[in-house]
Amino acid sequence: MKTKSTSLRVRLPVFVFVTQVVVLALYAAFVTYDEHADARFQTNRTNPMDNAVYRDYPVFTDIQVMIFLGFGCLLAFFRLYGFGGMVFNFLTATFAIQWAILVQGYFQFSHDGKIHLGVINLVNAEFACAVVLISFGAVLGRTSPLQLLVMALLEVPVFACTEWAVLRYLKINDAGGSILIHLFACYFGLGVSFALYRPCLNEGHAKETTSYQSDILSMMGTLFLWVFWPSFNSALTLKGDDQHRAVLHTFLGLSASTLTAFALSAMLNKKGKITMADVQNVTLAGGVTVGASVDMMISPAAAYALGALGCTACMLGYRYLTPFLARRLRIQDQCGIHNLHGLTGLISCAAGICAILMASEEMYGPSLYEIFTHRAPMEGDPKLRELQMLIPGLKPGLGRTAREQALFQVAAVFSTIGVSALGGVLTGFVLKLPYLAPPPDNFCFDDEQFFEVPPDYDSPLKLHNNTMEDSAL
Amino acid sequence: MKTKSTSLRVRLPVFVFVTQVVVLALYAAFVTYDEHADARFQTNRTNPMDNAVYRDYPVFTDIQVMIFLGFGCLLAFFRLYGFGGMVFNFLTATFAIQWAILVQGYFQFSHDGKIHLGVINLVNAEFACAVVLISFGAVLGRTSPLQLLVMALLEVPVFACTEWAVLRYLKINDAGGSILIHLFACYFGLGVSFALYRPCLNEGHAKETTSYQSDILSMMGTLFLWVFWPSFNSALTLKGDDQHRAVLHTFLGLSASTLTAFALSAMLNKKGKITMADVQNVTLAGGVTVGASVDMMISPAAAYALGALGCTACMLGYRYLTPFLARRLRIQDQCGIHNLHGLTGLISCAAGICAILMASEEMYGPSLYEIFTHRAPMEGDPKLRELQMLIPGLKPGLGRTAREQALFQVAAVFSTIGVSALGGVLTGFVLKLPYLAPPPDNFCFDDEQFFEVPPDYDSPLKLHNNTMEDSAL
Amino acid sequence: MKTKSTSLRVRLPVFVFVTQVVVLALYAAFVTYDEHADARFQTNRTNPMDNAVYRDYPVFTDIQVMIFLGFGCLLAFFRLYGFGGMVFNFLTATFAIQWAILVQGYFQFSHDGKIHLGVINLVNAEFACAVVLISFGAVLGRTSPLQLLVMALLEVPVFACTEWAVLRYLKINDAGGSILIHLFACYFGLGVSFALYRPCLNEGHAKETTSYQSDILSMMGTLFLWVFWPSFNSALTLKGDDQHRAVLHTFLGLSASTLTAFALSAMLNKKGKITMADVQNVTLAGGVTVGASVDMMISPAAAYALGALGCTACMLGYRYLTPFLARRLRIQDQCGIHNLHGLTGLISCAAGICAILMASEEMYGPSLYEIFTHRAPMEGDPKLRELQMLIPGLKPGLGRTAREQALFQVAAVFSTIGVSALGGVLTGFVLKLPYLAPPPDNFCFDDEQFFEVPPDYDSPLKLHNNTMEDSAL
Repeated sequence: MKTKSTSLRVRLPVFVFVTQVVVLALYAAFVTYDEHADARFQTNRTNPMDNAVYRDYPVFTDIQVMIFLGFGCLLAFFRLYGFGGMVFNFLTATFAIQWAILVQGYFQFSHDGKIHLGVINLVNAEFACAVVLISFGAVLGRTSPLQLLVMALLEVPVFACTEWAVLRYLKINDAGGSILIHLFACYFGLGVSFALYRPCLNEGHAKETTSYQSDILSMMGTLFLWVFWPSFNSALTLKGDDQHRAVLHTFLGLSASTLTAFALSAMLNKKGKITMADVQNVTLAGGVTVGASVDMMISPAAAYALGALGCTACMLGYRYLTPFLARRLRIQDQCGIHNLHGLTGLISCAAGICAILMASEEMYGPSLYEIFTHRAPMEGDPKLRELQMLIPGLKPGLGRTAREQALFQVAAVFSTIGVSALGGVLTGFVLKLPYLAPPPDNFCFDDEQFFEVPPDYDSPLKLHNNTMEDSAL
Repeated sequence: MKTKSTSLRVRLPVFVFVTQVVVLALYAAFVTYDEHADARFQTNRTNPMDNAVYRDYPVFTDIQVMIFLGFGCLLAFFRLYGFGGMVFNFLTATFAIQWAILVQGYFQFSHDGKIHLGVINLVNAEFACAVVLISFGAVLGRTSPLQLLVMALLEVPVFACTEWAVLRYLKINDAGGSILIHLFACYFGLGVSFALYRPCLNEGHAKETTSYQSDILSMMGTLFLWVFWPSFNSALTLKGDDQHRAVLHTFLGLSASTLTAFALSAMLNKKGKITMADVQNVTLAGGVTVGASVDMMISPAAAYALGALGCTACMLGYRYLTPFLARRLRIQDQCGIHNLHGLTGLISCAAGICAILMASEEMYGPSLYEIFTHRAPMEGDPKLRELQMLIPGLKPGLGRTAREQALFQVAAVFSTIGVSALGGVLTGFVLKLPYLAPPPDNFCFDDEQFFEVPPDYDSPLKLHNNTMEDSAL
Repeated sequence: MKTKSTSLRVRLPVFVFVTQVVVLALYAAFVTYDEHADARFQTNRTNPMDNAVYRDYPVFTDIQVMIFLGFGCLLAFFRLYGFGGMVFNFLTATFAIQWAILVQGYFQFSHDGKIHLGVINLVNAEFACAVVLISFGAVLGRTSPLQLLVMALLEVPVFACTEWAVLRYLKINDAGGSILIHLFACYFGLGVSFALYRPCLNEGHAKETTSYQSDILSMMGTLFLWVFWPSFNSALTLKGDDQHRAVLHTFLGLSASTLTAFALSAMLNKKGKITMADVQNVTLAGGVTVGASVDMMISPAAAYALGALGCTACMLGYRYLTPFLARRLRIQDQCGIHNLHGLTGLISCAAGICAILMASEEMYGPSLYEIFTHRAPMEGDPKLRELQMLIPGLKPGLGRTAREQALFQVAAVFSTIGVSALGGVLTGFVLKLPYLAPPPDNFCFDDEQFFEVPPDYDSPLKLHNNTMEDSAL
């Protein structure tokens, strides 16, 4: 069984070097330090310990662990594609972050013709990177590293532009990123997958299996994500009590979804056994489900209930919806991102809208207008002056009612899904361009196609091939 | 070799769903936010960066890594029970934490009929969870996940109640939890193990073996625990210099016990080789041994000596005491928790008592009465006013002498051991109820009894069974 | 194939116990708490939250993860020496840190005849430990644990003394430790390796191979190092904007070197495949390359360019220089530390010198004299008083010009290389003393020589030996 060349020797280096030169030129021309990183901004009244690095860096490292170790291990669950999962995650994530620094910088951090760089940009760029990695989950094992880089190249600008437009024009509340991260990533990924449809995969492919060691590794990835998920959901909330609630809700949501996942996994199995894939994926559903309302006063019990609910939807999605999507809608979803990010994201958005409709001054005190900025009275409204006595720095808002805010949330959900699905499909067609696409018979990758292995290497594929030959005799 | 059903299909989901409904109802009825997490408590004088989340969350994530990755990997050391160790640790820990939030909340964080929730409750709940996981080590591989959940259900209230009673009535110093965490967990676990005694295990069971990969994984768990142990021991000390000393002492203790463990392991082996189980377990002994005196002015050298001493006791325990306990006292101890938590815990308590007896104003300055709160003068004592000039917020104490405090420590040790052993034995008998117990022939579990594995999965058990059959021919 | 005894039973315990007694005696005689850890220094004006533990401990844990998990996993890449890599790293690191606390304490933290201990000493000691572990990389698999401990025993004082002399007399800028850590460690390690030269290893040894699982493990080590490298490079910079820039530059440098490494790896391979060893090592080159100028105003683009440049040098070093060194100069380098730390370190020093030459008040504002302390005007210079109006705490410097500072940097590079290479060669000859050296036929170690393995253990070596025997038939 000879593996056909996947042509990394020329195309991958060409792509990388070209993009590196372009990125370097753009950094040189447009990127400078922000006021917390620039030595010239330090005056005799600046206390070094007030520097933003002390506020942002701990969050940054937690999310770094999630991106590189969490996703890296989780995506290494295929027996014959462990290197691919872990290493191409590393490659794609690195590229996505450095590219997102530029693209998001253009939309969010630029003034005076320069992008102002601080650790906070890196945190934002890691969110953009998480979007790309979630989408990657839908096409794991079907895309070459070059295709992944091109996907990141296209997805990051579409994401950054959508994020900017939604936050600037629709002005929504989405602290945990349920709409902008999870829904966007999911429907973009499904769009790409739709374009890369391969009928033969529906029958179950011999390479699409796990092994004991790959399942353990993937489980470690899950645990890294589980442990640091509160940092992810609370990274971009307001400081203080908002961030505190975000941590509590995320932990409770994950906790409920973990127990539910074990119970459902045993219950839905004929022999009453637990499926490792459920433990690796469905346990995380609670983290997504609490996302849209993660900083609101929804009560600990509601966070718990959301976790259990999201987990149930996710589990049923894996059992019934994923096969349906693959067979009927030609949308294959290797890691089941539609269950873990799509269904749970939709529930999260619904819960967020409920929480917005129920939010009142009685529940939040005057800080209602800090969390729901756009509900603050407009400039000139006498109520604004009154509130500013209680909250000195309060900025004038748009005077939206709860119902109006809810409608804008709904608009954001639909427009995000629309843009991301369309962007995904178009990106998928770009990935099929002859220059990028692997040979048609490589419908499912394994590590030996991409990685140099010595002749006497005890790789899982060798065992696999031997078994194949034995059974062929 | 057909494996008998372990009946997870009905009993596990029933238990989980019932407890989840109960927990959800209790959260809804009794759990609200604490003042740092509640939006209504934020006034125009609250600085968001003073929120307790910034003080407690870094500690929380460090302990999360220890619980889920540290214990998870460490307990995966059985060749045929890696999933079981890692995944049932995940399940049990999650359940124990959400249950402890309620039970400890009732004892420690409730007023006005409500439990007030903040990240600090989660930190406390993780300590309760650590207690359950240590006890789990005594019966690893002999308990089904359902039994583990029932154990957590019973152990958490016994622990929370003991903790509350000891701290409220005996008023002891135990910053690193040597008495309340390590001794309690150890004797509870041995109590359970006593009730679940299985004579056949004494002969050494074929499934009770490790493999190269499982040893590596377990070693990683040890390293996670080792690296973050200073956070564990310093989490609940006073802030400032007390916490600083706790970090230093824990690091020095671990450092000394690690070197000692390597030396003893090679010395006690006939061929002069190092045993991986020693490196995985005995190296950690120093972290427990410094526990009771971790925040006191014991001097760096004493912390070092304690680490080496604890390690020696732990190592000798593994070699001589564990087999003795199993054969003579019918107490089997799969992970040797009596060595790593019991013997070292006792040494730690003795060291703590010495440190208390030697503590003087000369050594500590006036902050003596902050660390040893109960030695502060009583309300009305003129010395109190004098001290309050030096330490503005000092609270009146009980005017205990060092010797009195030491006696209370002794009383706490004995009563904790008594309560935990009794609680453990009773819990063990509950676990033997026919509804919970696995079939009697399943005296030692493996992953295939609990986890769905595809027919062609290259699991270690398949190899194991083949070898068994080969040798049977 | 019988393995000869490696005699750990007597010599290792003797060495460990003797050094432990000596270390304990020195701690007892000379080590006390520093002002942040000593209860007596806390007055009614001390705010506990201002304690240095809150500033230093997060950095400390990040570097702990790098040392114990990062290096531990990375060094476990040999198929038959995974335990050795991970476990001897643990042993050596622990010993090096506790020894460095004393030795560095003597040079840097002692006054009034006592070494004053705080978490900051531990951070410094971990840097000394990193030096030892990097040098370890050159002789991995050729040195017994006893030899490694002796190497740490000798290398730490040479390092601490060099560090002290260079910082005190040459007064250089080296925030990321390119000179004092990377160059020192590299040339010391190569010196040791030169003394331990074994011709037979040049032909490629059957034990010097990796396996699928060991490559995955090693990859995880790389990711741990990659994720926390910004903490390493920023640990010892000035607080505030300097630390902020150090984080940004390190991240950008690593990011550029990661992409470059993938591209070069595929390009230089005949079949266009990626080599795991490149992904494990060369991706990290950027972290070293930005080191010497990591806190300076070099611009984000320059950090990016340095990362790509360092990576290219490192990659070419692996392909062409390492074999040359081994064959022609008798310097074998198992992990290629000369590429990852030597070549990149030299580039880093050159870049640092350029950054120093270009540094001006226009670029840095008055804080120029904080970063480049020695360029501050001397006591009595009227310019000093002027600057002290802008920066209240500014200390008088030496009034060096940029060019003078650059010359001192050059002097530091050459003297560090000279001292470390000489120290390494001498240490290597000590390691060959009959008492320490393993039997001459053990030219390459495997785990079974050092670790107790049960007769039916499925270790990789068993498989290896069976294959050897089969092929011998």
